[in-house]
Amino acid sequence: MKIAVINGVNLNFTGIREKGVYGSQSLDEINALIADHAKENGIEVLFFQSNYEGGIVDFMQKCYYDGVDGMVINPGAFTHYSYALRDAIASVNIPTVEVHMSNIHKREEFRHTSVTAPVCVGQICGMGWYGYILGIKALVHKLQNDCNAIK
Amino acid sequence: MKIAVINGVNLNFTGIREKGVYGSQSLDEINALIADHAKENGIEVLFFQSNYEGGIVDFMQKCYYDGVDGMVINPGAFTHYSYALRDAIASVNIPTVEVHMSNIHKREEFRHTSVTAPVCVGQICGMGWYGYILGIKALVHKLQNDCNAIK
Amino acid sequence: MKIAVINGVNLNFTGIREKGVYGSQSLDEINALIADHAKENGIEVLFFQSNYEGGIVDFMQKCYYDGVDGMVINPGAFTHYSYALRDAIASVNIPTVEVHMSNIHKREEFRHTSVTAPVCVGQICGMGWYGYILGIKALVHKLQNDCNAIK
Amino acid sequence: MKIAVINGVNLNFTGIREKGVYGSQSLDEINALIADHAKENGIEVLFFQSNYEGGIVDFMQKCYYDGVDGMVINPGAFTHYSYALRDAIASVNIPTVEVHMSNIHKREEFRHTSVTAPVCVGQICGMGWYGYILGIKALVHKLQNDCNAIK
Amino acid sequence: MKIAVINGVNLNFTGIREKGVYGSQSLDEINALIADHAKENGIEVLFFQSNYEGGIVDFMQKCYYDGVDGMVINPGAFTHYSYALRDAIASVNIPTVEVHMSNIHKREEFRHTSVTAPVCVGQICGMGWYGYILGIKALVHKLQNDCNAIK
Amino acid sequence: MKIAVINGVNLNFTGIREKGVYGSQSLDEINALIADHAKENGIEVLFFQSNYEGGIVDFMQKCYYDGVDGMVINPGAFTHYSYALRDAIASVNIPTVEVHMSNIHKREEFRHTSVTAPVCVGQICGMGWYGYILGIKALVHKLQNDCNAIK
Amino acid sequence: MKIAVINGVNLNFTGIREKGVYGSQSLDEINALIADHAKENGIEVLFFQSNYEGGIVDFMQKCYYDGVDGMVINPGAFTHYSYALRDAIASVNIPTVEVHMSNIHKREEFRHTSVTAPVCVGQICGMGWYGYILGIKALVHKLQNDCNAIK
Amino acid sequence: MKIAVINGVNLNFTGIREKGVYGSQSLDEINALIADHAKENGIEVLFFQSNYEGGIVDFMQKCYYDGVDGMVINPGAFTHYSYALRDAIASVNIPTVEVHMSNIHKREEFRHTSVTAPVCVGQICGMGWYGYILGIKALVHKLQNDCNAIK
Amino acid sequence: MKIAVINGVNLNFTGIREKGVYGSQSLDEINALIADHAKENGIEVLFFQSNYEGGIVDFMQKCYYDGVDGMVINPGAFTHYSYALRDAIASVNIPTVEVHMSNIHKREEFRHTSVTAPVCVGQICGMGWYGYILGIKALVHKLQNDCNAIK
Amino acid sequence: MKIAVINGVNLNFTGIREKGVYGSQSLDEINALIADHAKENGIEVLFFQSNYEGGIVDFMQKCYYDGVDGMVINPGAFTHYSYALRDAIASVNIPTVEVHMSNIHKREEFRHTSVTAPVCVGQICGMGWYGYILGIKALVHKLQNDCNAIK
Amino acid sequence: MKIAVINGVNLNFTGIREKGVYGSQSLDEINALIADHAKENGIEVLFFQSNYEGGIVDFMQKCYYDGVDGMVINPGAFTHYSYALRDAIASVNIPTVEVHMSNIHKREEFRHTSVTAPVCVGQICGMGWYGYILGIKALVHKLQNDCNAIK
Amino acid sequence: MKIAVINGVNLNFTGIREKGVYGSQSLDEINALIADHAKENGIEVLFFQSNYEGGIVDFMQKCYYDGVDGMVINPGAFTHYSYALRDAIASVNIPTVEVHMSNIHKREEFRHTSVTAPVCVGQICGMGWYGYILGIKALVHKLQNDCNAIK
Repeated sequence: MKIAVINGVNLNFTGIREKGVYGSQSLDEINALIADHAKENGIEVLFFQSNYEGGIVDFMQKCYYDGVDGMVINPGAFTHYSYALRDAIASVNIPTVEVHMSNIHKREEFRHTSVTAPVCVGQICGMGWYGYILGIKALVHKLQNDCNAIK
Repeated sequence: MKIAVINGVNLNFTGIREKGVYGSQSLDEINALIADHAKENGIEVLFFQSNYEGGIVDFMQKCYYDGVDGMVINPGAFTHYSYALRDAIASVNIPTVEVHMSNIHKREEFRHTSVTAPVCVGQICGMGWYGYILGIKALVHKLQNDCNAIK
Repeated sequence: MKIAVINGVNLNFTGIREKGVYGSQSLDEINALIADHAKENGIEVLFFQSNYEGGIVDFMQKCYYDGVDGMVINPGAFTHYSYALRDAIASVNIPTVEVHMSNIHKREEFRHTSVTAPVCVGQICGMGWYGYILGIKALVHKLQNDCNAIK
Repeated sequence: MKIAVINGVNLNFTGIREKGVYGSQSLDEINALIADHAKENGIEVLFFQSNYEGGIVDFMQKCYYDGVDGMVINPGAFTHYSYALRDAIASVNIPTVEVHMSNIHKREEFRHTSVTAPVCVGQICGMGWYGYILGIKALVHKLQNDCNAIK
Repeated sequence: MKIAVINGVNLNFTGIREKGVYGSQSLDEINALIADHAKENGIEVLFFQSNYEGGIVDFMQKCYYDGVDGMVINPGAFTHYSYALRDAIASVNIPTVEVHMSNIHKREEFRHTSVTAPVCVGQICGMGWYGYILGIKALVHKLQNDCNAIK
Repeated sequence: MKIAVINGVNLNFTGIREKGVYGSQSLDEINALIADHAKENGIEVLFFQSNYEGGIVDFMQKCYYDGVDGMVINPGAFTHYSYALRDAIASVNIPTVEVHMSNIHKREEFRHTSVTAPVCVGQICGMGWYGYILGIKALVHKLQNDCNAIK
Repeated sequence: MKIAVINGVNLNFTGIREKGVYGSQSLDEINALIADHAKENGIEVLFFQSNYEGGIVDFMQKCYYDGVDGMVINPGAFTHYSYALRDAIASVNIPTVEVHMSNIHKREEFRHTSVTAPVCVGQICGMGWYGYILGIKALVHKLQNDCNAIK
Repeated sequence: MKIAVINGVNLNFTGIREKGVYGSQSLDEINALIADHAKENGIEVLFFQSNYEGGIVDFMQKCYYDGVDGMVINPGAFTHYSYALRDAIASVNIPTVEVHMSNIHKREEFRHTSVTAPVCVGQICGMGWYGYILGIKALVHKLQNDCNAIK
Repeated sequence: MKIAVINGVNLNFTGIREKGVYGSQSLDEINALIADHAKENGIEVLFFQSNYEGGIVDFMQKCYYDGVDGMVINPGAFTHYSYALRDAIASVNIPTVEVHMSNIHKREEFRHTSVTAPVCVGQICGMGWYGYILGIKALVHKLQNDCNAIK
Repeated sequence: MKIAVINGVNLNFTGIREKGVYGSQSLDEINALIADHAKENGIEVLFFQSNYEGGIVDFMQKCYYDGVDGMVINPGAFTHYSYALRDAIASVNIPTVEVHMSNIHKREEFRHTSVTAPVCVGQICGMGWYGYILGIKALVHKLQNDCNAIK
Repeated sequence: MKIAVINGVNLNFTGIREKGVYGSQSLDEINALIADHAKENGIEVLFFQSNYEGGIVDFMQKCYYDGVDGMVINPGAFTHYSYALRDAIASVNIPTVEVHMSNIHKREEFRHTSVTAPVCVGQICGMGWYGYILGIKALVHKLQNDCNAIK
Repeated sequence: MKIAVINGVNLNFTGIREKGVYGSQSLDEINALIADHAKENGIEVLFFQSNYEGGIVDFMQKCYYDGVDGMVINPGAFTHYSYALRDAIASVNIPTVEVHMSNIHKREEFRHTSVTAPVCVGQICGMGWYGYILGIKALVHKLQNDCNAIK
């Protein structure tokens, strides 16, 4: 099982920027935690981060050609206006879980709307870095079963 | 650790009603799966379902007096207009995770808005019955750590 | 043929409250007129009224188990915000006709919108208590025929 | 008792166009069913259909001079924007019931609003061609009684 | 000087319909008053009324070919949605004054907006039938002077 | 003189929940203060609290039968969406004053709108528990005089 | 007959400011034209201009005490937000005609709405300074007749 | 204890204008009633009324320098748009209660919104002139206690 | 192959009206250019223009009976509000291309929305009279191929 | 004559992704068809695709320096929010035709709005890959003539 | 060079009121700093402050007659609703720079909109009292050059 | 002191594109003017321009590591939708001044809103290239003082 963990714009500054909102761990530390979890569960994880919307689209298309089974994506601020990412997720047709470390419903109005969530399997928010682990668990559960219920 | 799993209006019809949307398992079957998971992890779970908004408020206040550590709630249709539930969650001040079996962002416009999510720790949607398990995992993770990041 | 006639919040005050809007007959008198009409036409009618949203959901679920063939519902003020009733009607999947005694399009703005009508067969408004009779006629006509046209 | 049954734009294509929505009977066949019903009940019915908004206004003014007692109107797409028909109904001051064969609340957003309903006695939708019969029944009931309740 | 006085939909029912709003004089009586005024002032007036939007467009195009100098128009309910009349007024490029007998700002919300006024010289409302006289006076004043100020 | 003091959803948690917003006195303590005030002024007070919308409607109808002269109501979160309570207040036709302990205009946007206030005599907000006393004073003043001014 | 001609904020700069919009005549020159017209028709005219909203309210109250029969007002920019002027016009209860020299429907969006027009007899716009003359004519006509039609 | 009672635009016409809405007592009579009440309770009251927004701002700044303890204000129509008054109240930082004699929630839509209430202690409406008395009582209660609850 | 070229309201004034927007060729000249193009390509073209909405509906129904293969329509101002034309196009179920000579996205806000385009194959705008030729080319291409891509 | 054919984000996945919407031909195959057409008509075509908004801006600036005569652009999802592309098209000032393979008016609400169309010559949608050919034809026609009408 | 520095409503309380937002310097101290700066640069400055909207309009008209070269204005709360100031600035046609000490984009929603900025040269916000200096610098730069770029 | 001057999308075309809006100087010429000013004042300036949103985010993160003291940014069209830039500015936490050469409040509606301004120190618009100089002056002033007032 091959899962891509994708982080969008500014998320490479996690642990540096606004620690009150996102926690004090750096993206590398978070990825290490994810890698540990994945290894224990026999999952191959591909990590990718980009501040470029086009770069993420390119990477998703590469995932399609590389046979990636699922994607966990935290698009950062792209969540709220990138119809390009929305189309890319729909286009590569790989089951995708959207993750936000903070509870976006508690923050500014513009963060309440996700233009990418409607083409994902589902969305997880407010659980800090542990949300990525939950996202992987959700994908594994979905992929291992004939999960009509999740559809 | 004591966790309440609360289901709101119409969710006692899960497995009977619209199977394409919610899956074919009954609420009892789902609760059994949750109970199994909880038992394995040494968590005490209290199950509650009501079609009455007031009944859920009463139950949450009871949770407060009974020292419940966390709540997983699927308010059903109440999600979209019950400011009473919102105030109740804020009032009892118990960490709460909101769960929806379907991906609410894919459905009718009115289901995209949650009036209860802003007072919860976070929200999980689109993962079917497994969302409840993820919700419990998230609460356990939050409660076991000094999780500044999740706040 | 078994039809449930359901009245929502405040409708037990019909004939007492605002007679200029709803007429001077009490709900019991209206139900008696409906019962007469039903008896003449060999229809079994179940009457139900509740000021509790949850009570109506419970009753609808009971209708499902009791094999009710159709429902005529006047949800009262619930019409305009109770997504819970909407989901309940969709969930029990019994043909339902929504009835309002007054012409809701002539009254306050908030009464122009029905959140329950989209999951009903149709809606009748402005015909006073006779609207319930028309609702029953519509259900009978629908149930007696293979009515593709009504769908 | 003299009742006009008025059909607006495109309704002369009923039975030809979108049968899934409107049923497979032609307007002539529907009018024949209405005529039968009217004859049995001793009601004189005038049938009128036009694709011209101005043509319907002219016909309504003629109804005024001819002493028509009631009107059943399905304005078709005019329902959603013709303030001209609205003013005409108010102007001739003949009790009018608005009928739609399909449940307009289930269809596109723009079909949820009627600019003509506020000046009618009431509205019936979702009952297929039988809605015209119900509309006539409602008018007869209203005209035969001193129906304060229906106002 | 040749001026067209155009009345739109339902205005041939003035004096018959809603007298509280429009006064008790018929359109013929109003036109007679206008004719008297015009005669005294040596103005040729063409009267036109139609319940057909297309009929008014045709008449305006005819005005263009007949060298009409100005138009006074009360579009009735067309005022609020007929982009076709708007385009026609712009197209024939004849100075036009919009008149409403009632004060449209005191009535229903939808009557506050005019889609035709932006292409007229100006608008007069609330002055009853005398508004037509004022409209003619305004046109005469505009046509007799090199009225930059009115533009 | 008989006055009902009605508290809606979550208000039985006053003094426990969010003390910064509602103060530290419990509902029982507040009711005791009200009872003292009433006794001193020879007013009979009926206290009622429910987390159920339907329960409050039932109680109001009971007030009607029991000849209650006035009602002071703090509907809690129901204020913002319960058209059912609005209809109930209009239906029982007892002079009612709406009270909010906090200044609802300083809080979240959704709390700025009251669907019940338009059918009340008036509204008092931001005065803490003393608002109930002011509400009773207002009712007494209204009831003791032929107060055209308050209407 | 005594009529007040009131000009609001910035209108003392007419003829100096934006001549393309308002024409090249100064307010004094316009008032002289109005005075001539009034004299010829035996009307007493009071002229008033102020850049202070409160000053206009004061003047209107003075008109009330001085027995002014009608007011012609061009509120300038106050038209679009001064509920204070609206209340003042309603309060003194003197028939008032609102006048705008330019066609407000052709200009910025915010100029399309008048908060004062709903409490006036009517509104005239787009006729340049001649609009004041038309406004006086309208008032005279209204005052000289028992004009039910103008109401 | 020194309290200012401030009335905004048009309120000097109370008792003259729209008596159905505001009652038949003049502002002087109302102020006399307030003065009596104040005298009995040993409160010094300063009365002020102005039709000028700027005049009220000036007066509030004067209150600041004169050590006024509280303000009761009925801003009249300024309530709905005067951000200047809002800023003034926030700026002088004197506890203020907003009062409206009529129930603003029953009247035109624009009267439902107050731009000044969010910076006041609270708001009282619908109680006629007695609302001023209630406002003074509320201030006294607040000032005499260490009222955390009212904050 | 038989194609109808339909022009809506005011388009018979093309070449006369607003030449800056629509060019200086008359509708007859444009139709001649279209006819030449059609002849060269062996296509039969039917030309139709009406200022009546109902006239266009009638003509479309005639097209249905006459076996027309495709329609090119420029509805003029009807584009923006005629749900009647929308229903007519859907009803006759003939592939239709919507054409506008000007770029509607550059003009007034209300011209940016087309209520007819959603039931057409597609839309072409901004290409002047050549847009009609492009529309015919598009239809021919669609009809000559098994064009899944265009659907 | 030199024309650039520019495809935006995700369009390199045409033929792979959602074939029901965009057809089964790959972008390379479509470009080959365009190249054939161009060659036959003696037009030089430059092909460009990028998933990067900035990449397209760069390419357009390059077109400006290379003397490109016209551009055909399908911005993909950028259509709906990229004010950057809008400014770039306006900035390079090369005649541009916007093309969409699907009928954007039939799809999700957010696809109905184009922020780039107002600065283009015009827009073509719903014609599949043939839309590119039509776009080139339109540019050629515009460039070969002194086409005032197209402006 | 003669520049007017105009402060609107409540700004005479700067340094007294909300120091967290506006700083602790009084308006006199700020004006002294501005005067120093002006003196050093050979600029004549006129200072004006009023809590009266009409007073500011009067002062601006005086500036016009006195040959003022530029205006720096901080309208305070008038910024957000005073179309009267907007018209006054446009009317006197003196280059004006709008200044706000706080960053209005960080504060309440209603402060994000300026109705006066569209008729100014530009706007400066968030720079505290130094914003006035920057505003003067901008005006000097504009006036000293033939600055097409600033227009 | 080290300040970055950042220009966003299309701004490398300044002086080439729309000179009426942005002036005729090229970005290089503007940067030279800024460099001169900086040199005179002993400020180190870093210049950066990119048409890529991601490129600007990368550069800002680099500024963070390089110890830049302040940033002056003209995001171009990104101003109106790039929540990514907003988050980046907040994330690097370097004092930033937003600059626009044109007065954005005078242009299209979409240009009135800035999603980046709320996380900047302030905003300057309408001053042409001189706005960059003013932005640097503002930063220098802020950095040199303990400027509580500017916060």
